[in-house]
Amino acid sequence: MGTLLIKQVTLNGEKKDILIEGNKIGKIADEINVSADEVISGENMTAIPGLYNMHTHSAMTLMRGCLEDAPLFEWLDEVWRLEKHIDPEAIYWGTKLACIEMIKCGVTCFLDLYWFIDTAVKAVEETGMRANLSYTILGGGDAEKEARQVRECQEIYEKSKSWSDRVQFSVGIHAGYTVAEETMLWATNFAVDHDLLIHTHLSETEKEVKDSIELYGVSPVKRFKRLGMLSDRVIAAHGVWLDEEDIEILGNRRVTITHNINSNLKLSSGYMFKYKELKAAGANVVFGTDGTASSNNLDVLESMKTSALMQKAWRKDPGAMPLQEIMDMATKDSAKALRINSGEIVEGKLADIVLVNTKSAAFTPNYNFLANLIYSANSSCVDTVICDGKVIMRNRVIPGEEEVLENAARMAAKLAKNL
Amino acid sequence: MGTLLIKQVTLNGEKKDILIEGNKIGKIADEINVSADEVISGENMTAIPGLYNMHTHSAMTLMRGCLEDAPLFEWLDEVWRLEKHIDPEAIYWGTKLACIEMIKCGVTCFLDLYWFIDTAVKAVEETGMRANLSYTILGGGDAEKEARQVRECQEIYEKSKSWSDRVQFSVGIHAGYTVAEETMLWATNFAVDHDLLIHTHLSETEKEVKDSIELYGVSPVKRFKRLGMLSDRVIAAHGVWLDEEDIEILGNRRVTITHNINSNLKLSSGYMFKYKELKAAGANVVFGTDGTASSNNLDVLESMKTSALMQKAWRKDPGAMPLQEIMDMATKDSAKALRINSGEIVEGKLADIVLVNTKSAAFTPNYNFLANLIYSANSSCVDTVICDGKVIMRNRVIPGEEEVLENAARMAAKLAKNL
Repeated sequence: MGTLLIKQVTLNGEKKDILIEGNKIGKIADEINVSADEVISGENMTAIPGLYNMHTHSAMTLMRGCLEDAPLFEWLDEVWRLEKHIDPEAIYWGTKLACIEMIKCGVTCFLDLYWFIDTAVKAVEETGMRANLSYTILGGGDAEKEARQVRECQEIYEKSKSWSDRVQFSVGIHAGYTVAEETMLWATNFAVDHDLLIHTHLSETEKEVKDSIELYGVSPVKRFKRLGMLSDRVIAAHGVWLDEEDIEILGNRRVTITHNINSNLKLSSGYMFKYKELKAAGANVVFGTDGTASSNNLDVLESMKTSALMQKAWRKDPGAMPLQEIMDMATKDSAKALRINSGEIVEGKLADIVLVNTKSAAFTPNYNFLANLIYSANSSCVDTVICDGKVIMRNRVIPGEEEVLENAARMAAKLAKNL
Repeated sequence: MGTLLIKQVTLNGEKKDILIEGNKIGKIADEINVSADEVISGENMTAIPGLYNMHTHSAMTLMRGCLEDAPLFEWLDEVWRLEKHIDPEAIYWGTKLACIEMIKCGVTCFLDLYWFIDTAVKAVEETGMRANLSYTILGGGDAEKEARQVRECQEIYEKSKSWSDRVQFSVGIHAGYTVAEETMLWATNFAVDHDLLIHTHLSETEKEVKDSIELYGVSPVKRFKRLGMLSDRVIAAHGVWLDEEDIEILGNRRVTITHNINSNLKLSSGYMFKYKELKAAGANVVFGTDGTASSNNLDVLESMKTSALMQKAWRKDPGAMPLQEIMDMATKDSAKALRINSGEIVEGKLADIVLVNTKSAAFTPNYNFLANLIYSANSSCVDTVICDGKVIMRNRVIPGEEEVLENAARMAAKLAKNL
């Protein structure tokens, strides 16, 4: 079992030594005198738990900036047209590019909803991150296609048993408007039988809610409830358009809602996200970036800032999303949703730790570290990333980064021929 | 006259050589073969004009994060209490800290409204940036104090004649609600007589507008017009709360409005900024960060992104603020407002150039450079900054940075004793 010792790092305002034994945090103390396999100096560094990106479509990195300043339907057309040409090789390099980008932003774990996940898993395993990869079911009214997807979902679930402990499998129900009700019922049972999470899109746009009421007589949330789908194993992205009853249901069922502010702003989907009400009702609220085709980057630290600024602004309440709550959402609340024993720097937890370099203008003065991290700095303050006890970025260097950038650019150029 | 040659840098999508002669851009061509005093490789770099921060209170860096998640009046109390203890030494190091931070974000020029500007000018001159420093008149109902400030404004204007060409002087009228009308009349005449700009706050909060209507019968914009103050020599920060007539007036008078989105969001001042209407009416709209006590950083690139996202969101129009307009606002439109022959990379203009490193995940793929710069990257992509023909940051290193961080932290610690 390897050991890694971080010497005299700032943790919750105090200088500490942190000893990592294997993939866990073994000991935290004022001073630890052991001879570890590897020692990292904590000088000018503050330790925070690794961040979670709780909703993304990672290999969409290859479509970053493919269509700008355009209305949603034009954008979707473009994305769907490009996606037809995506193959496993593109998925592999696109996912690797996403991992590189997320590690550089201090993300140690992400929840993904995309295609070819048996290829994506290879990319994730190699980078050393954690992830939960959702097999996407999206029939779009084609029953045969959807039946094929259900079969493949089961096959990949079986394969997932041989994945490393760092990568989980979940069932992805794209959305209520793209998947048949009988498939949603099947997915719910399959998830319960195999103790899996369900990842979905829910109430992202006003149109989605209106269409649901017109077609089914109720909002998407009430429809999901009627289908018996809602529980604490559901992680639903967006939740921008919710009425009071929807919020009560999501709270009672302890659903996790991923807030993707940058995507919601950029696609003009809506921004009056009911954070306070969802939290008060008992829902678990976390952050995501969405895919880079809509939000352009995978920077969770930026999402944290924009989310908080928007809450303050539209509610006219500067205390609408307090600093410590923002950090908890991005770390331990996310870990809870994914059922991972991580998200906090305490003894016995998995060692997912980010070292933030505070020797910069952004952290000067340092009256309030969290305020500086969230409102002043950007993700370039992330110096070192440790995931599952292993250093996956040191002094902002990730081994193999150059190869990934080159190959991802090559894949994107191939895709771009279809632009 | 020194020469600086940038070899094979990407400029508007093409590889170019840029020759800087003295403080100006001498020649731009596919290839320039001269022996220059200094040669910089443009490999992996894209050249953009230096950015402008068109409204800040630079030495407020010392108050970064001093009070968080608090209502505006509590925050203002804290700021005013701290400001009583600010002395020239604090101003010097606080301004230097601001300059370091701005250079790192690719800013080559800023418009400042703060105290002790005859000390601040020293800090600015030493860093090599451009700035326009406004002497702040803020009597707050104390006629004697205001008369003293008017005298000092005149004195410092005289002194400003010996400042370098990089630093301009302007008259700062804090706001309509803190300065007497006769002082505003004096300032307008003084500015015309000496061909100076006037820097002010205008229609930042709903309360400011309501109070103005109650006290003077008209909005702050209409009152400024009535006092004969509005012209293209006025740069007014905020302009969040404007009616149709206000917008028409600001347009007709060719006033420059600085949009400070992060500050407006964080202090819950309002976000429905009428960009499109102001622009259509003929006003000049540019970006600012405001001081770090409210917006926490001086990152104009971040302001550009947040401004555009907010326009798309509240207008429900993804084309509300197109990419090229965003760039123009942060560069040539700002230069025009400050009457500086800069803001564009063309022969004959002052050499204020930023080299952006595109070898990173944020710029992969690079279908659309501006989209990547504004929506994907953060300011850590700024590699090299040239201002007035001189390299003031190279590979993200600014000479003397460490000394500035240390001294600014020391000054802040002294201030913090009063927290």
